[in-house]
Amino acid sequence: MSWAMVTEPGEIRAIALVQQLGAMDSWEWLREQGHRLESGGNHHVPASLRRSVKRWYEHARTIDLPGVHRAIESVGARTLVPGDSGWPVKLDDLADEAPLCLWVRGNPDLGAVSRSAVAIVGARAATAYGVGRAGEMSADLASQGIAVVSGGAFGIDAAAHRGALGVGGPTIAFLAGGIDQFYPRANAAMLAAICERGGAVVSELGPGAQPLRSRFLKRNRLIAALGDATVVVEAGLRSGAMSTARQASSLVRPLGAVPGPVTSRVSAGCHELIRSGMAVLVSRAQHIVELVRPFGDLAASDADIVMAGVQGELREPQESAPTWLTDAMDVVRSALRARRRGVSIDEIVEVTGLATNTSLAVLGELEARGEATWRGRGWELIDSSR
Amino acid sequence: MSWAMVTEPGEIRAIALVQQLGAMDSWEWLREQGHRLESGGNHHVPASLRRSVKRWYEHARTIDLPGVHRAIESVGARTLVPGDSGWPVKLDDLADEAPLCLWVRGNPDLGAVSRSAVAIVGARAATAYGVGRAGEMSADLASQGIAVVSGGAFGIDAAAHRGALGVGGPTIAFLAGGIDQFYPRANAAMLAAICERGGAVVSELGPGAQPLRSRFLKRNRLIAALGDATVVVEAGLRSGAMSTARQASSLVRPLGAVPGPVTSRVSAGCHELIRSGMAVLVSRAQHIVELVRPFGDLAASDADIVMAGVQGELREPQESAPTWLTDAMDVVRSALRARRRGVSIDEIVEVTGLATNTSLAVLGELEARGEATWRGRGWELIDSSR
Repeated sequence: MSWAMVTEPGEIRAIALVQQLGAMDSWEWLREQGHRLESGGNHHVPASLRRSVKRWYEHARTIDLPGVHRAIESVGARTLVPGDSGWPVKLDDLADEAPLCLWVRGNPDLGAVSRSAVAIVGARAATAYGVGRAGEMSADLASQGIAVVSGGAFGIDAAAHRGALGVGGPTIAFLAGGIDQFYPRANAAMLAAICERGGAVVSELGPGAQPLRSRFLKRNRLIAALGDATVVVEAGLRSGAMSTARQASSLVRPLGAVPGPVTSRVSAGCHELIRSGMAVLVSRAQHIVELVRPFGDLAASDADIVMAGVQGELREPQESAPTWLTDAMDVVRSALRARRRGVSIDEIVEVTGLATNTSLAVLGELEARGEATWRGRGWELIDSSR
Repeated sequence: MSWAMVTEPGEIRAIALVQQLGAMDSWEWLREQGHRLESGGNHHVPASLRRSVKRWYEHARTIDLPGVHRAIESVGARTLVPGDSGWPVKLDDLADEAPLCLWVRGNPDLGAVSRSAVAIVGARAATAYGVGRAGEMSADLASQGIAVVSGGAFGIDAAAHRGALGVGGPTIAFLAGGIDQFYPRANAAMLAAICERGGAVVSELGPGAQPLRSRFLKRNRLIAALGDATVVVEAGLRSGAMSTARQASSLVRPLGAVPGPVTSRVSAGCHELIRSGMAVLVSRAQHIVELVRPFGDLAASDADIVMAGVQGELREPQESAPTWLTDAMDVVRSALRARRRGVSIDEIVEVTGLATNTSLAVLGELEARGEATWRGRGWELIDSSR
């Protein structure tokens, strides 16, 4: 943990030290050699490492460990290091860029939650079309027990998380800043909901770290590595989502992209990924499932176990709903009652006039109460009279 | 020609006879052996051919050749058979399904017009999005001297032809019925315009033949074969355009497909073609040009020659325009004047409120009058004061 606080994410020299000497011994080594280096005494630091060691050592002297622990405790975060039981082993595929330590809020068993996972990423400035697709695909994946991994940002990221939350499914958000601050602030309620409902908010940066541009790019490698596949829903040609896509490709993880109108700037990145053969065109959740389970190799029981765990977390806190939610639930109930067959999110949005995200939240609530369910092709009310 | 009138398009037994014996001798053979077969006398018709020969012979006896010639002359059609100077040799790639004869209205040098050609096909029940893309891509291709080949139908076909007409470029429509009837009737004016402006309307069916379903499917192979590449703009999963796409693939011609919203039924066929790897995703005309000229191997001068020929044909007939057209031209002129840079078809449609097809027709008229031109990225008024 201390190492993670004095280095930048993905600093391969530090990672190599920790991986070779172990966290404890390498930290001892840093304190000793850093002190000797600074005081001008004899030291055993190779010339190529001296600048880094000086920087790390200066950082290390300023760490207020008790303060860090207080900050972590105050937000209910925990640390995970490689080898811990909750450690997501998929991140080890990052090899010399693997994280040294993760801070986790919410479900501490990150390995179990992310066992079957898909990264859904895309533009912050997403269109209604993209937000709708991200929400619907995520809802469909999450309802099959596949965790949705994203970056907690506006636009596609938020729609992906909310889609999963809406069906009571697992979702994981990787932050680019310190674990003590939910960023962006406007998504704080959503990030809190992720933690409360069986998912997790994760960062490799300790308390107080700012979300810098370089940290966003480094963060993207974690999203790509935790997903068994990555799907880009909408992305401009030069965008963070495209960098995540490249990370997924370099990890030899399957990559999907959702097509859209060729007139839309934020579909241009997706089309480029498909044109170049880097990504497979995916137009519905089933296509994504095929990327993750090409041979249908995850038995249904596995998904059931994951879902049961998450649903258990979800069903516990059933406080009285706010008025707007009660009203919205009535509207959605009528919309579902008016049709015999399953109703898609888009149809619900069209009929009720609610926003996609709101509709998903309401459907999630109705499902949590056992009133509605997703049956293959759409949402349906559960007929309690039968 | 007589053979083509007694057989169905692509009847491989008849084609084999003609290809082996030559048109004249095989026709003599049919008349002689058909007569002997019918009258119960000695004949040399293999058992496997007897039913076909009887049918062809019965047809042949009913042909009113002078009547056929009158019908052809009355609509100004000409016949082309393999070996004629205007014969499009690309159709010979169809091998045992190559047409025996083509009826052509408009430009009789079909080989020259189609030397560089792209087939643009798609749904009759196209969306505004698809019509816009087909029109814009066709306009862009045709303005580079690439002929646009399609089926003259509603929706994408018509938008493709009109896109080419709009920039005074060459376009070719293959009919599924007899050459004497413009089908569908509602597109008759467009088909007539194609013939008048250097393009051609073509059928392998003689006068009087009805556009049957089976003939549409057979017709599609001609569209695919004449195009150096085929592009599907919008298509349902089971549709004629998908059959054209398969024909293009089996001819080892490059195939492109335009993506669209995954929520659109008529983009589902395109997405399936891309997903399966059968088609390349194309989002603008340049992508199509890359399919046709992967090494940029057609010199600019070739395109210039083709365009010069077509433009020559186009500029001649300049009768007085109908009132609606004069009005529409005023509206489009103002729209172009309001912007300094090139204006896309979509922007013109948005600003003027005219339909896409109308806008294209009006722009074509303005271009024919030397008032407007397409410059790389959009339409512009030609400043006559400079």
